[in-house]
Amino acid sequence: MIPMLTTDERGRLTPVRPGRGERRPLGMDEVTITGGFWADRQEINGSATIDHCDTWETRVGWVGNFAAVVDGTIAQRRTGREFSDSDVYKLIEAMAWEVARTGDERLDARIEELAQLIERAQDPDGYLSTRYGHPGLEPRYSDLAWGHELYCYGHLIQAAVARLRSGREDTIVRVALRAADHLCEAFGPDGIASVCGHPEVEVALVELYRVTGERRYLDQAALFVERRGTGTLPDIEFGRSYYQDDVPVREASALRGHAVRALYLAAGAVDLAVETGDDELLGAVRAQYDRTLARRTYVTGGMGSHHQDEAFGDDFELPPDRSYCETCAGVGSVMVAWRLLLATGRTEYGDVIERALYNVVATSPGADGRSFFYTNPLHKRVPGTAADPDEVSPRALAQLRAPWFEVSCCPTNVARTVASLAAYVASVEGDVVQIHQLVPCTIAVDLPQGRVELEVATGYPVDGDVVVTVLEAPAGVTGLELRVPGWAAGAATLDGDVVDGPVARVDRPLATGDVVRLHVPVAARVTVPDSRIDAVQGCVAVERGPVVLCLESIDLPGGLDVASVVLHGDVVDEGQGARASFLEVQRGDAPWPYGAATDEQHLAPAFEAALVPYHSWAQRGPSTMRVWIPAAR
Amino acid sequence: MIPMLTTDERGRLTPVRPGRGERRPLGMDEVTITGGFWADRQEINGSATIDHCDTWETRVGWVGNFAAVVDGTIAQRRTGREFSDSDVYKLIEAMAWEVARTGDERLDARIEELAQLIERAQDPDGYLSTRYGHPGLEPRYSDLAWGHELYCYGHLIQAAVARLRSGREDTIVRVALRAADHLCEAFGPDGIASVCGHPEVEVALVELYRVTGERRYLDQAALFVERRGTGTLPDIEFGRSYYQDDVPVREASALRGHAVRALYLAAGAVDLAVETGDDELLGAVRAQYDRTLARRTYVTGGMGSHHQDEAFGDDFELPPDRSYCETCAGVGSVMVAWRLLLATGRTEYGDVIERALYNVVATSPGADGRSFFYTNPLHKRVPGTAADPDEVSPRALAQLRAPWFEVSCCPTNVARTVASLAAYVASVEGDVVQIHQLVPCTIAVDLPQGRVELEVATGYPVDGDVVVTVLEAPAGVTGLELRVPGWAAGAATLDGDVVDGPVARVDRPLATGDVVRLHVPVAARVTVPDSRIDAVQGCVAVERGPVVLCLESIDLPGGLDVASVVLHGDVVDEGQGARASFLEVQRGDAPWPYGAATDEQHLAPAFEAALVPYHSWAQRGPSTMRVWIPAAR
Repeated sequence: MIPMLTTDERGRLTPVRPGRGERRPLGMDEVTITGGFWADRQEINGSATIDHCDTWETRVGWVGNFAAVVDGTIAQRRTGREFSDSDVYKLIEAMAWEVARTGDERLDARIEELAQLIERAQDPDGYLSTRYGHPGLEPRYSDLAWGHELYCYGHLIQAAVARLRSGREDTIVRVALRAADHLCEAFGPDGIASVCGHPEVEVALVELYRVTGERRYLDQAALFVERRGTGTLPDIEFGRSYYQDDVPVREASALRGHAVRALYLAAGAVDLAVETGDDELLGAVRAQYDRTLARRTYVTGGMGSHHQDEAFGDDFELPPDRSYCETCAGVGSVMVAWRLLLATGRTEYGDVIERALYNVVATSPGADGRSFFYTNPLHKRVPGTAADPDEVSPRALAQLRAPWFEVSCCPTNVARTVASLAAYVASVEGDVVQIHQLVPCTIAVDLPQGRVELEVATGYPVDGDVVVTVLEAPAGVTGLELRVPGWAAGAATLDGDVVDGPVARVDRPLATGDVVRLHVPVAARVTVPDSRIDAVQGCVAVERGPVVLCLESIDLPGGLDVASVVLHGDVVDEGQGARASFLEVQRGDAPWPYGAATDEQHLAPAFEAALVPYHSWAQRGPSTMRVWIPAAR
Repeated sequence: MIPMLTTDERGRLTPVRPGRGERRPLGMDEVTITGGFWADRQEINGSATIDHCDTWETRVGWVGNFAAVVDGTIAQRRTGREFSDSDVYKLIEAMAWEVARTGDERLDARIEELAQLIERAQDPDGYLSTRYGHPGLEPRYSDLAWGHELYCYGHLIQAAVARLRSGREDTIVRVALRAADHLCEAFGPDGIASVCGHPEVEVALVELYRVTGERRYLDQAALFVERRGTGTLPDIEFGRSYYQDDVPVREASALRGHAVRALYLAAGAVDLAVETGDDELLGAVRAQYDRTLARRTYVTGGMGSHHQDEAFGDDFELPPDRSYCETCAGVGSVMVAWRLLLATGRTEYGDVIERALYNVVATSPGADGRSFFYTNPLHKRVPGTAADPDEVSPRALAQLRAPWFEVSCCPTNVARTVASLAAYVASVEGDVVQIHQLVPCTIAVDLPQGRVELEVATGYPVDGDVVVTVLEAPAGVTGLELRVPGWAAGAATLDGDVVDGPVARVDRPLATGDVVRLHVPVAARVTVPDSRIDAVQGCVAVERGPVVLCLESIDLPGGLDVASVVLHGDVVDEGQGARASFLEVQRGDAPWPYGAATDEQHLAPAFEAALVPYHSWAQRGPSTMRVWIPAAR
């Protein structure tokens, strides 16, 4: 049974606030990231990315679509794909969390400005779309498979949840509630017995139930989750698995089809299972996700092996050069893992979150916060071309980070995730505080026994020392747990004692002034793949703490390419990356690349080259790159 | 300089009849395949495949589209994709070659029946399409990027060429000439200065010039070839490289983009270069194709690494599990290689043709000739499902051979190629007959010195003995050459003497009754890949003669999967395949497939299993399959 959680006002500032589960997440009102890797990224997100998204959504007309609905010109003037409304909503959600984080009044006013425009475009009955249902456009819900209307509602609702959790009941909240009530009517037990081609509204409706207490939102989410997989959507060339309409959610054995769709659906199904105490559904989704981690996930935590349908591949089908690893799928995996961690108490899901954050979510935006990767391949054979900073780019891999895309879901997804990241750091179980992400932060939580205030100081992931100082603690039973990443098991220490499992546990009662010291060895290490991942056989990856490293051609001497070297000898930890020894490979240029024997030679002498964090790749200009590096045999 | 060829009536029965080049191809009037592998397939093609295609094209309405144009209901009733007309034309071409091959009167009448229907759908000015240009449809040439109107003309013209070469000037010929004249007007120097999104009309126009002598068709082909690559088509998400509109044909360095488009264009460019004596263009396309063979071709001869855009990948991007290797790309590669062989005299292009024929073109149709693979992957991780024999299938890989596809270009492409296969067997250069494909056949060619008649008897590729008996030969200088496949170099013998190069040359004058014996060792051999093909590192393939073998799970004991074994020890030639020794791989089921060390163990004792021809795979029910097999280390 999934236990009940208290549902008072504490920790309300979070995108995910289950009513049941093993852990209560701490909100942004209880955790503040104070420095380090993620504080830097939060700063760039707030000072550059959010405004950048607003500028581009305005420039390409996605904001203007709402105005065109109002003035009746939408059929002539509409721009963007069928789901462009959702990016305006995701932007508002990002702004909302940023306002909650920093109190930014300018963004607060911009939210209201956008919301008032959106409100004017909403139909009296709550229907809202710039793509359907207006004169000259196709009718409402005439293309559920591809229309994305409910997907857009989902992001609208998540924006509204962010505002409600921030104590605001403003325009965007009213708009979202009207839309939610409309959709419960339109798709309820007596309404259209179908689902949206892109899951998302499910996870949003459960959260809206959590924040409003209105049961109908939960019931509607349940209808959507249970309908999916019963063939309500048309069959398509990619197969119904593309939108998870092939097998009922509780009967599937792995995540499959379009990765973002699959992950958003899984997140919603976990939320539903938690709120309804449905152990069977929770167990089913957990098993699917666990199998996905074991067999369908890249070493970066990235998901999605196919370009064609942005989809998971078969088990162990993980080609590094064609890895899609959409940034949004990284966000989706964090969503699922965090919900499962809270529901089951299984600390190891924090490893998955950490991996996806450092190696997918952090890889997408460039250092300036104004350019992004949509896909995150692990191997780049041909140097990318610089994207035009004034042009909308396709999603393909030919380019380096680009300012905006025709399908531009990723920048706003990064923005809302980074702005709300403090809400993924810690949780409580009873009177024990768990720290899941090892970031410099302050934690202040009111437990039944009294207030606990902690300060976490660390240079992680550059170094592995994490010092927790107890600023305040009530007398008695309060405890503390810190996640120990899987790769550090048996090598981490807590106050000098070796930690074997995934949790470093301070068993003694905490007292004001106590200092707890966790050490996790972050030095560069060599990782080998399961041999069923055919595409990287004979290769190794180098990881440093939670950060996956890569080799860029720009770091190779004499104009060598990453295809022309093999790893030879030890890897030496260095700074934020590593150095390793390589041999140059010499080959003939045969007219046919298959033969009785290889003509490959590994030339002495060995030479050294740097390995750099994957999240920093392509920041120094075009380069070839690989995470998995052939090892000399 | 490309030398002139004689252009008399000899050898006219062929799809490709250059006016210049190093070799004159022998036609179906000069070569008859008399037995063996390809005679069997020609028999099935004639007795099953062609009628099967006719039945399906009628059933799904692609034939009926022409009737709907005639009766004015096309806007309401049209079925199929925008290029469905082309499949009717390809069917007619297949029928035409089959009539030429066998004299089948029923097919002859069916050609006329179809042609009369098509003629009634043709506009008075020669325009012909069931997709555009009629009331209720979009206007003519309103979407050159995707509309395929000129692509359809190309296949219509090729069907007409087949009839003209068969000595018929019937309805389909008149229709095609009207269409060709219309398009020369519409797209000529004063017409629409653009190209079709799918090359094909170029290769057809040059051949129409060859058969009619009308220079305007050649000039129009030249316009199309020279316009391409100048950005006349819109930019798309796949990039203009998708339809080869990124770089002018003579400036490109490799085939790229959509594989079938690239290959058809290359074939047309070779033809154009040959007819105009354009050494620069010929050299450019040859270099592109050679680089494609060296770096972008699968061991099967298959081309196309991407599902998303059915496209070539980067150099050495050749994942076996995601190999697209569209059957039509195999046909396209045969087209290019044969034209280059004839133009340059380079015998080795015969190896490429042989490889693509045995391992792509022969793989597509099932034994019954009524089911087909559209894509030809080299690794299948999950057993396919049986296709419904009464349903149209998607192109995807989830299914085994299917009766018909929504995009069903491949069955008719196989049909026209197999029916005309005798025209790819041999050529003459001066008074020397060259045999390029080692098939049982009779060859009768009138040389200036007199008539040469040869009989080729062989069990190739099952065995490696090829016996050529001279049935008739004029006194004097006549010679004979036989291609020796690259894998047999240095091991083949001609009348007992070792042959070092790609050609076994009979230097003595031939005399009636002479017998020439070529032996090529076809026993199973192990092949290793260039290490830059990352996806198959540590793997080997087993080939037998020109036939690539594969491992199917159905041949493994105890329900083992192809992912659970490694090749261990020698490969033993056996029958049409081989036997090899394997070890079972045992692994744990880790929750994360990356770690400090592998837990993989190779279990003794070794066991034997069969390797079977790749072209025969999935004929015994669903199975996992791999061509590249991990070798025990």
